[in-house]
Amino acid sequence: MFETSFITLFPEAFPGPLGVSILERARKEGIWNWETVDLRPFGLGKHKNVDAPPAGGGAGMVIRPDVASAALDSIDTAGKHLVYLSPRGVPFTQSKAHQYAGGKGLVLFCGRFEGLDQRAIDAHGMEEVSMGDYVLAGGEVAAMAMVEAVVRLLPGVAGNEASLTDESFENGLLEHDQYTLPRQWGERGTPEVLLSGDHKRIEEWRFNSAKALTKERRPDLYAAYSKTHEFQPPETGDEHD
Amino acid sequence: MFETSFITLFPEAFPGPLGVSILERARKEGIWNWETVDLRPFGLGKHKNVDAPPAGGGAGMVIRPDVASAALDSIDTAGKHLVYLSPRGVPFTQSKAHQYAGGKGLVLFCGRFEGLDQRAIDAHGMEEVSMGDYVLAGGEVAAMAMVEAVVRLLPGVAGNEASLTDESFENGLLEHDQYTLPRQWGERGTPEVLLSGDHKRIEEWRFNSAKALTKERRPDLYAAYSKTHEFQPPETGDEHD
Repeated sequence: MFETSFITLFPEAFPGPLGVSILERARKEGIWNWETVDLRPFGLGKHKNVDAPPAGGGAGMVIRPDVASAALDSIDTAGKHLVYLSPRGVPFTQSKAHQYAGGKGLVLFCGRFEGLDQRAIDAHGMEEVSMGDYVLAGGEVAAMAMVEAVVRLLPGVAGNEASLTDESFENGLLEHDQYTLPRQWGERGTPEVLLSGDHKRIEEWRFNSAKALTKERRPDLYAAYSKTHEFQPPETGDEHD
Repeated sequence: MFETSFITLFPEAFPGPLGVSILERARKEGIWNWETVDLRPFGLGKHKNVDAPPAGGGAGMVIRPDVASAALDSIDTAGKHLVYLSPRGVPFTQSKAHQYAGGKGLVLFCGRFEGLDQRAIDAHGMEEVSMGDYVLAGGEVAAMAMVEAVVRLLPGVAGNEASLTDESFENGLLEHDQYTLPRQWGERGTPEVLLSGDHKRIEEWRFNSAKALTKERRPDLYAAYSKTHEFQPPETGDEHD
């Protein structure tokens, strides 16, 4: 059982997208579960305050380390990855998803306001992880995305294991273009090769589609791919000249 | 009114994280709204099929272009950005969030299975956009994250306009470390400079904290930042030698 705990000021935001489709089916089958830990009851004073102004001044409020720490201490974190979702973090990637899926579970601290006091991050050795180069209103939707990416990799969650390896990032390229029925849709047909039944030509077409798309949209990925594969495109294959 | 439409096979996943905090308050104030458009009723035949096997063979199922197109045609898309959420897409960034926030709304197609037939993407001129280098079970959580990033930038949504400019990505750097009460937490204190009241020194400390963090965690961002700012770190300032 892969256990996930979301520390949040907004438990009512859950499960949202985690409560449908293959994730909900896998939860019912006992492959994983989720819980929310409401940060509010750990707050201080009559009003259960969880935040205070930033030391040194400035806009917004910062979550107190003592309050965050008390919430973390209430959870059995043994063998689990502790994650603080934040745009300041190291980028989450598909290989990180595989790494987390190999563990016992995830404890995810969902930030709000101007963020969390640095001392709480340090004291608990939390990994600060980002889901992308944009700023959200809170860590909840980021935490959901992370858990969805991780849980779908657990054995028995995705229906077809083959579909896990033949997709974006798993081989260093974006996935090729997809076509399905109808074969002719208005003026738009299906690439002839895909209807040929010639598996070798189909594989080649898909590989070229994946390479062309990656080169156009993600020159960063394409450069990394070219470096680690025997294939060298003529334009960047200077070492082989 | 900024209008958002989510085309999805799982309308019950919504609003999730979009139904709390500042986003829900802004919706009640009429700044934005959301609707789901269920893809299923546009499906074909007795079973309302929306997908079929990939042309050329392979794992999984692909969403049919005729079904996706019918769902898109049911929405008033005038002046709105049409987005297909997919790990194959161009990366979503904070500057893209600003661009979308300047429009009239968003129509977001949430993929499932092996994705959407390429002809539907082409025919409707959809932008294919990715929220990060990882694979989700579906586009729903990605669409929610995108809408959250965009809507919080609309005028009147975030309480304090200052907190929108003093944060990660807005100046090309990750945000500096944050501290708040208590000043002393166990063995952990607060950096002395933040308690000095000397605003010039505080600004300097925060700038150095932001630079150090960005350099350590995101050498890619740091390199871009160094190129476009007067400040040149000695290690990379070759042009000035």
